[in-house]
Amino acid sequence: MQNTVISPELIAESNARHAAALEDDYASLGRKLERQGVAIDAVTDKAKGWAVAVPSWGAGRGGTRFAKFPLAGEPTNIHEKLEDCAVINQLGRTTPGVSPHLPWDCVDDYSALREEAEGYGLHFDAVNSNTFQDQPGQAQTYAAGSLSSTVEATRKQAVEHNIDCIEIGKQIGSQRLTVWVGDGTNLPGQQDLGRSLDRYLDAAADVYAALPEDWLMMLEHKMFEPAFYSSVISDWGSSLMAAQELGDKCKCLVDLGHHAPNVNIEQIVARLHRAGKLGGFHFNDSKYGDDDLDSGSINPHQLFLVFNELAEAEADPRGGFDPAYMIDQSHNVTDPIESMLSSAEAIAGCYVRSQLVDREALRAAQEANDVMLAFRTLRQAYETDVGPILAKARAEQGGAIDWLGTYRASQYRERKAQERKAVGQGAGIV
Amino acid sequence: MQNTVISPELIAESNARHAAALEDDYASLGRKLERQGVAIDAVTDKAKGWAVAVPSWGAGRGGTRFAKFPLAGEPTNIHEKLEDCAVINQLGRTTPGVSPHLPWDCVDDYSALREEAEGYGLHFDAVNSNTFQDQPGQAQTYAAGSLSSTVEATRKQAVEHNIDCIEIGKQIGSQRLTVWVGDGTNLPGQQDLGRSLDRYLDAAADVYAALPEDWLMMLEHKMFEPAFYSSVISDWGSSLMAAQELGDKCKCLVDLGHHAPNVNIEQIVARLHRAGKLGGFHFNDSKYGDDDLDSGSINPHQLFLVFNELAEAEADPRGGFDPAYMIDQSHNVTDPIESMLSSAEAIAGCYVRSQLVDREALRAAQEANDVMLAFRTLRQAYETDVGPILAKARAEQGGAIDWLGTYRASQYRERKAQERKAVGQGAGIV
Amino acid sequence: MQNTVISPELIAESNARHAAALEDDYASLGRKLERQGVAIDAVTDKAKGWAVAVPSWGAGRGGTRFAKFPLAGEPTNIHEKLEDCAVINQLGRTTPGVSPHLPWDCVDDYSALREEAEGYGLHFDAVNSNTFQDQPGQAQTYAAGSLSSTVEATRKQAVEHNIDCIEIGKQIGSQRLTVWVGDGTNLPGQQDLGRSLDRYLDAAADVYAALPEDWLMMLEHKMFEPAFYSSVISDWGSSLMAAQELGDKCKCLVDLGHHAPNVNIEQIVARLHRAGKLGGFHFNDSKYGDDDLDSGSINPHQLFLVFNELAEAEADPRGGFDPAYMIDQSHNVTDPIESMLSSAEAIAGCYVRSQLVDREALRAAQEANDVMLAFRTLRQAYETDVGPILAKARAEQGGAIDWLGTYRASQYRERKAQERKAVGQGAGIV
Amino acid sequence: MQNTVISPELIAESNARHAAALEDDYASLGRKLERQGVAIDAVTDKAKGWAVAVPSWGAGRGGTRFAKFPLAGEPTNIHEKLEDCAVINQLGRTTPGVSPHLPWDCVDDYSALREEAEGYGLHFDAVNSNTFQDQPGQAQTYAAGSLSSTVEATRKQAVEHNIDCIEIGKQIGSQRLTVWVGDGTNLPGQQDLGRSLDRYLDAAADVYAALPEDWLMMLEHKMFEPAFYSSVISDWGSSLMAAQELGDKCKCLVDLGHHAPNVNIEQIVARLHRAGKLGGFHFNDSKYGDDDLDSGSINPHQLFLVFNELAEAEADPRGGFDPAYMIDQSHNVTDPIESMLSSAEAIAGCYVRSQLVDREALRAAQEANDVMLAFRTLRQAYETDVGPILAKARAEQGGAIDWLGTYRASQYRERKAQERKAVGQGAGIV
Repeated sequence: MQNTVISPELIAESNARHAAALEDDYASLGRKLERQGVAIDAVTDKAKGWAVAVPSWGAGRGGTRFAKFPLAGEPTNIHEKLEDCAVINQLGRTTPGVSPHLPWDCVDDYSALREEAEGYGLHFDAVNSNTFQDQPGQAQTYAAGSLSSTVEATRKQAVEHNIDCIEIGKQIGSQRLTVWVGDGTNLPGQQDLGRSLDRYLDAAADVYAALPEDWLMMLEHKMFEPAFYSSVISDWGSSLMAAQELGDKCKCLVDLGHHAPNVNIEQIVARLHRAGKLGGFHFNDSKYGDDDLDSGSINPHQLFLVFNELAEAEADPRGGFDPAYMIDQSHNVTDPIESMLSSAEAIAGCYVRSQLVDREALRAAQEANDVMLAFRTLRQAYETDVGPILAKARAEQGGAIDWLGTYRASQYRERKAQERKAVGQGAGIV
Repeated sequence: MQNTVISPELIAESNARHAAALEDDYASLGRKLERQGVAIDAVTDKAKGWAVAVPSWGAGRGGTRFAKFPLAGEPTNIHEKLEDCAVINQLGRTTPGVSPHLPWDCVDDYSALREEAEGYGLHFDAVNSNTFQDQPGQAQTYAAGSLSSTVEATRKQAVEHNIDCIEIGKQIGSQRLTVWVGDGTNLPGQQDLGRSLDRYLDAAADVYAALPEDWLMMLEHKMFEPAFYSSVISDWGSSLMAAQELGDKCKCLVDLGHHAPNVNIEQIVARLHRAGKLGGFHFNDSKYGDDDLDSGSINPHQLFLVFNELAEAEADPRGGFDPAYMIDQSHNVTDPIESMLSSAEAIAGCYVRSQLVDREALRAAQEANDVMLAFRTLRQAYETDVGPILAKARAEQGGAIDWLGTYRASQYRERKAQERKAVGQGAGIV
Repeated sequence: MQNTVISPELIAESNARHAAALEDDYASLGRKLERQGVAIDAVTDKAKGWAVAVPSWGAGRGGTRFAKFPLAGEPTNIHEKLEDCAVINQLGRTTPGVSPHLPWDCVDDYSALREEAEGYGLHFDAVNSNTFQDQPGQAQTYAAGSLSSTVEATRKQAVEHNIDCIEIGKQIGSQRLTVWVGDGTNLPGQQDLGRSLDRYLDAAADVYAALPEDWLMMLEHKMFEPAFYSSVISDWGSSLMAAQELGDKCKCLVDLGHHAPNVNIEQIVARLHRAGKLGGFHFNDSKYGDDDLDSGSINPHQLFLVFNELAEAEADPRGGFDPAYMIDQSHNVTDPIESMLSSAEAIAGCYVRSQLVDREALRAAQEANDVMLAFRTLRQAYETDVGPILAKARAEQGGAIDWLGTYRASQYRERKAQERKAVGQGAGIV
Repeated sequence: MQNTVISPELIAESNARHAAALEDDYASLGRKLERQGVAIDAVTDKAKGWAVAVPSWGAGRGGTRFAKFPLAGEPTNIHEKLEDCAVINQLGRTTPGVSPHLPWDCVDDYSALREEAEGYGLHFDAVNSNTFQDQPGQAQTYAAGSLSSTVEATRKQAVEHNIDCIEIGKQIGSQRLTVWVGDGTNLPGQQDLGRSLDRYLDAAADVYAALPEDWLMMLEHKMFEPAFYSSVISDWGSSLMAAQELGDKCKCLVDLGHHAPNVNIEQIVARLHRAGKLGGFHFNDSKYGDDDLDSGSINPHQLFLVFNELAEAEADPRGGFDPAYMIDQSHNVTDPIESMLSSAEAIAGCYVRSQLVDREALRAAQEANDVMLAFRTLRQAYETDVGPILAKARAEQGGAIDWLGTYRASQYRERKAQERKAVGQGAGIV
């Protein structure tokens, strides 16, 4: 029996108040979809079966180099973070997986940690390594890079940390390692662009060699930040090159905020799928750079178009289709629990909309070069208000129809502000 | 004996007026470089051996969808274009190659055309095919794409045109085919992003199959325009995927204006070189999009950094190093001859600067993570005023020290304005 | 009695087939909105009262500098364009205004033209001048600019053309002049950036002086194209400076595709409103540059956020609120009638959504810095499927519930392809 | 007599070793410039009279939200920072001004601080306020904004801090206040875009009211970061509006890294000058966002074009010309002293090049629409290697010809690493 953090009675009471409205909206939408030849309950079942992982680090307040403004009651260790993740999943029922970050989430006993998660109905998803920061007592600094460092001992230390992540991952039930490095340069000439990638790949091959058979290694590219002239794995092309060289168990991870301005991200998804290298996603939204905003908050249509490509990929798996879905956001001004609930709903909503696309009509329009009809076939699905489907899926699984009202009524954060130790002010780095 | 378009006497007279100043500047630079351990004459010899092709179409005025403003005396056929290219090479001595565009440059007798070029001391470089426009009498329209069209007959027609280009290329002495297509979409859903690439690659494979053994096929990617939502070969990652799938004789061409904002183009050069797929360049400059401005006019430092990567690549050829260099610009407000002379000088200047980089010092600084020293090693070369080397190389090969003054003194354009038929106003398309 | 281009019987028959479904959807949405405290019929009435003008030139196929692919049956003069605009308004009932472009739409008898439009139930909106192209027989060329030209006679000619536009506008019932110039430079140094604006403002003041009392002059800024290094009125800041200097009857026009990448356009709307200088809009959508795609096709959320600012502005008019709404798109791959119907619906949909925002709740959340609640208040309105309201508004005014199906059933374009003379191929300018 | 931090003997010895080479290079350049009609010594005199301020905070290592890697021997208080600034100015002789940041540089006795600076031959330039971070013990948080906060007490606190800055500035001899706020939003709807500016301006007016007669208030705009959806003063248009509303003593400050991608910054400079609102600069360079890289390291040509506008502005001051020049960089991977020496040289180099432009020839070419000649007139100046002029100016004022070699030979940093207390690792905020 699961450890419920939010009172099921509170959820039930809240749901009772919203049940009639939901039934009306759901029935209305059902009739509308039926006229399009879609059975709403089948879609709701798909929604129930769909999930996206939350990042353990996302449970805390994020910040910028200028400042971090702490939130009363925010978690300061993996145990508190798991508790918060349990709230998110209990109310939203879309996020049973938690993606840990090491060494931030290091503990003494990983099988206990796994049981702790399972007690909340949670499990661990992809493990994220960290070689972009120095840790106290660390022998080598990452100031001049990690896997691509010119210093052999530094590369070795970074490789070993990644292998440690795999070892820990095995204990907590993960099967994926996400590797993002901050390696790059701030000035032209600082490093040779070719040899840096050589060193990165040599080191990454040592990590790859330690992967169990049933694991995947996911390379996460990023255009810039923390390096501002060049990044070793800066774009999907570099990520693809690296994943091809490393082997079949290495794939590419797409973070929605890590691209150049104006780039067509959904086409990158299609390209990586075609290359057999679509490993997974870090969902967030952005307007300028790696803003790490709530998923779908800035450009919800782009998120839908990404899911449209995923639906196409699932329908035509070519060499296979099994991407890992994770949220990766920095919650600088909101309660992270609310942001992740909102984001998970936005992402699931795009998944549901992608399932509403009349693919037969779409393909026929494409074949006939009927541009307007093809566009409107997609647009019809996008404009469908799928809120009733998502709410129904939540309610039927024990979650909250009105997750925001229910969460606030629970006064969870206020209670944690009493219980948990305060977080220090982020002084900012500038 | 070559057909000289500009009077050699005029050039000689002009050079005589600038000879003393050049000798002083060259000697001064020689002493400065000697203090850096560099022998200036060896560098000048390298400059003499370096070349970049000019595009036949670049000899005419360019324009935008809004308007084209014709230039009195601009060329309207390949014969006149060759004459203008002869002027460029006679004065600048860096551009003996001419890259033709078909069907714009189609003639009845290609061996005569080749002789005509050779009469000017010119030869033909990479052939460019054109499936982004419909030609009068063409059976199939490219309105909905060419190599990636859903219509088999259209794809076939596009393939055949490319094969025709190869055939013509063989007759005029070319060994490269540059393939740029405008295929893409303007609305989400218009085409399936995966299947479009499938069709493109199927068709491109038919072109590839027609390549002679000693030919290369170069794929030119472009982010946008004429398609404004997605382009089939939109970025270097897509280009790399396609070139890998097509085979060893297929490589990637980098146009400096075809990338997303802020992208590190020099790193793309390094990546393609590492993948064995660096086919060549279309040089130009841009501030916003595919602006096709004069090379080096907006960001000369970026052009230098590209050449720095090329110097690194030449020093470490991995699988080989033999990129094709071409200018590709749209001369909307200048005399194309002047713009190409200016651009060729800017490009050659970056080549020369890249040869001045103290690579031993640079590598040592990189190995030691001495960021400032590495940067300044590059910067020292960049800030060197290499004008005297370029002028010396020109003068010693019969070109003009002061190419602009000499060209204007020749009144070439004014004479052509009398001789050549007028070009109609571009009405603009909007 | 109006000249109906599409058979009213055809519309009525089509509407009859969709009436039951619409009634169900409309009633369902009505109940949902009622639970939010919103009376649906009041919103539908607002939708009926809202309009956006279409551009006469938008009725033709657009193209790029590379090519234009003509459409069989596209209009080639203002009379045919008016007929097409009549179709758009008859089916969609949102676009009674037509914005003409001179000299493209010049005729001999403007009062007859006005009657012709009125016969279709149309009227003329803002007049657009054209000094970015040379016209046959024109004394001065705009090759080096128009209002900002260094040549006095050229500036004078451009001023006179604008004054002609005002004169024609008076005859056809317009009260606004939209001024967009392509003036700018392609190379650093080409013109002095300060003195170019001085000349522009001197000339624009002469145009301003000719404005009737009840007219507005709207300045349209654009970042780039056709000029690729600098544009005289490149951004809203320059537009604001110019409008302030010219006077109260001069305001700024916002084209959604004329901004730098990533720019927050809705904030520009708020800023111009605050400065009392929000003149109007050219609606379209873009992913890369001035792509002129169908409104809302790429980023519908951004379009909604613009309308949210307009709703805020209307609620707090400060010095006044009366922006002109126009579509300005280039229809390169679609039937322009379909694209403008689709776009007008998308724009009207954003207007309707903006009216659904619970402004009291939004303001309370903002005052309390309740970030999530404020965001979700906006988002609730955005996610509402307002299709039933738009369809109801159309149907009640004689338009088509299913405008696409009805338009296609009418075979209007096919008939015009028989009647109208063919358009020549756009050769492309490159 | 000034407190010299680096041994004058060391500098003299180093200069002696480079004197002969400098004399040769300087004489060569002198002859070259003479042929252009330019007297080199007059230019060198201008270089000697030109200065750019350094930021006190720039003396420390910067970092990103991901990590900060400390440098052994970096300063941790204003006294140590002043000492480092003294080194920079002693070697480079271009940076006698130091721009302080409060409360980072708060001390008990400001007249003593001023004397301390003067002992090094330094003075204080513009004071920077800080309302983007919370300070220990602060009554109100800036988590939801400062000058634009919805909370009156917060706005009042921010105003008072700015007034404190003015008071301190008066004591240390400053006459300018630079105001940059991080106020903005991360989610659409979070705040009303219009009312946020209203509140900002109300509060800023209270700061403005406290300005002494001979002071300027400089508003610094920034597109994004720390706010990622909207920023209150996001662009030069907003900055101009605000400065116009506040009054004559309020001007706009241009930071080179705070703009949208592709923006023409030199035109913004020209526009602000024309509006009489060009207050000053924060110099740095960037490739992606507010990267805060060394000035001129990424796009030195852009920096030159900015100085070309400044030279034009000085020649045509309209209402006045007196901008404040400051460096504002984040030195994440270099020794800040080296980066600021390198940057100051790059900036001064662009100033010198701008003085070499043949303005008469440039203007004539512009008037004649001789695009190529105009461009090449600018380019000739840009390509001039002005290193000898800069070195001569340094040497004649007691600075180091080879500032990098001399600095390293001094072992200043190594000594400070012994003397100064260590800085803690930046944990990163993410």
